[in-house]
Amino acid sequence: MIAVFGHRNPDTDAIASALVYAHFLTRQGTEAQAYRLGELNFETSYVLRELGLEAPPLLPELPAGAEVALVDHNESAQSAGNLSELTVTRVVDHHKLGDLSTQTPAYLRFEPVGCTATILLKLFREAALSVEREDARLMLSAILSDTLHFRSPTTTADDRAAVDVLASLAGIEDVEAYALAMFAAKSDLGDTPASQLLKMDYKVFPFGEPAQQWGLGVIETTNPGYVFGRQAELLQAMTEAREAEGLSGVLLSVVDILNETNRTLVPGPAEQQVVQDAFGAEVTAQVADLGGRISRKKQIVPALETYFASRT
Amino acid sequence: MIAVFGHRNPDTDAIASALVYAHFLTRQGTEAQAYRLGELNFETSYVLRELGLEAPPLLPELPAGAEVALVDHNESAQSAGNLSELTVTRVVDHHKLGDLSTQTPAYLRFEPVGCTATILLKLFREAALSVEREDARLMLSAILSDTLHFRSPTTTADDRAAVDVLASLAGIEDVEAYALAMFAAKSDLGDTPASQLLKMDYKVFPFGEPAQQWGLGVIETTNPGYVFGRQAELLQAMTEAREAEGLSGVLLSVVDILNETNRTLVPGPAEQQVVQDAFGAEVTAQVADLGGRISRKKQIVPALETYFASRT
Repeated sequence: MIAVFGHRNPDTDAIASALVYAHFLTRQGTEAQAYRLGELNFETSYVLRELGLEAPPLLPELPAGAEVALVDHNESAQSAGNLSELTVTRVVDHHKLGDLSTQTPAYLRFEPVGCTATILLKLFREAALSVEREDARLMLSAILSDTLHFRSPTTTADDRAAVDVLASLAGIEDVEAYALAMFAAKSDLGDTPASQLLKMDYKVFPFGEPAQQWGLGVIETTNPGYVFGRQAELLQAMTEAREAEGLSGVLLSVVDILNETNRTLVPGPAEQQVVQDAFGAEVTAQVADLGGRISRKKQIVPALETYFASRT
Repeated sequence: MIAVFGHRNPDTDAIASALVYAHFLTRQGTEAQAYRLGELNFETSYVLRELGLEAPPLLPELPAGAEVALVDHNESAQSAGNLSELTVTRVVDHHKLGDLSTQTPAYLRFEPVGCTATILLKLFREAALSVEREDARLMLSAILSDTLHFRSPTTTADDRAAVDVLASLAGIEDVEAYALAMFAAKSDLGDTPASQLLKMDYKVFPFGEPAQQWGLGVIETTNPGYVFGRQAELLQAMTEAREAEGLSGVLLSVVDILNETNRTLVPGPAEQQVVQDAFGAEVTAQVADLGGRISRKKQIVPALETYFASRT
């Protein structure tokens, strides 16, 4: 039995791709079970609820040597706590390759596309395996989520082609309406505590040499007014996270999905300096206008890497 | 232009897969050029000569940031000297994942099969690209070489299936006769200096913690009598290599392809102790009988890893 899971602070791709890949492996004769490494966000809950599906269970502490498959991530900092003791035999991912190594030859499938599910659809086709309606909808949801329905600069022609195929297999005629419903669900944040809002889509990255650790959160929303209404709480949660986790800085980008803009919360003077220097951005009342930089992976992280590399 | 190359001390898979993958990429619209990281062995020279092909040129020192594709390897110790300065955008490999990382998302295609060329054939099929006769013969030769025409325990069902397809595409009717001609060419070592014989198929591996570096050479031959006729010279070359490269030990496995046996040269007491303890092998007159362990990757390296891990 292979345990299949996506990254911590799971998003729709991390959950959907774990479910679909576990299903794919099982149908191919390799028993597999999907897990999650954290709580679902509101978008993913919406996707599963609409499909009448339960969330995959939380990953238990696996015994050393247990066989695992990673989807939508490969770096140990984003994975199971005892990853180095586990046996990784399969990875399907669309991120850069980090600190992963394997004890024996494994199946690794990385492509520079917008979403893991885009690669999964290729696996089905290469194996000449039919795609069930439920899996099609999960993969479709993951791609719409990761690419913000093609608004993100991470979108590739492969993602667009996959959505065409999957929408038809999933029986979804108005793809943009479905995407907007997903985004609205994601934006309905209710009374979620600020500390949890910060961590919904949050990753820690090392920058420079010797490495500084930076926490980078993103809230993609169709309702940025709601988030900025809670600005004071969020800034405090960021300061607390910076101290509790021993980070050099924390940023929270509020991405307006419909207008494709990024206004980023800046909790202190260290973050302000970096944001000004790395992006040439104006900072007013602890908010930096990062313009159309809506992709952390493609626009925020590379700019910070370049900035910190130039200072070492 | 992407530079495509296999590992140092290239074997037939490292050369053939570089040529075929460069051809594949170019036909797919990504200009690519194959290179090699060292001298061809006699088997590979035979394969290219029979096809009327030139060897790919030696890899020049590439400028920092140059785009490269790795085939049949991924560890920096087996790659271009300045790999860390180069931009790896593609890897096709069948080895375990080592210390590779990438700056941006890349195409990585690893499968636990017997030969890189087996994976390349899948790429052609997935792209619905016809396989030209020359490429078919290169891939066929690589698989026969890496699997010793299915004698090696690294052989998988995928390798067998690929050989069936490729033999037909290459117009080779008697596959075993062609394999034996390749192995005979490989075994015709003439007056090659002993230091070169040692390095023909040679890799350095770290074992244990803190890591000891061990050099492991293999000579696959249909004529082991020739090799043992040069035993004294080879043992001396091994001792010299151990000292020159600051290694903890050097072993040279002489694999009798037709009888599927491995007799390994043991240059000193440190190596003798390890061979006795790790394999439970008899050592007589500086030769250890390792029985049917003919695969370095599948049988020699894992046993040494287990042995050194148990001592730390």
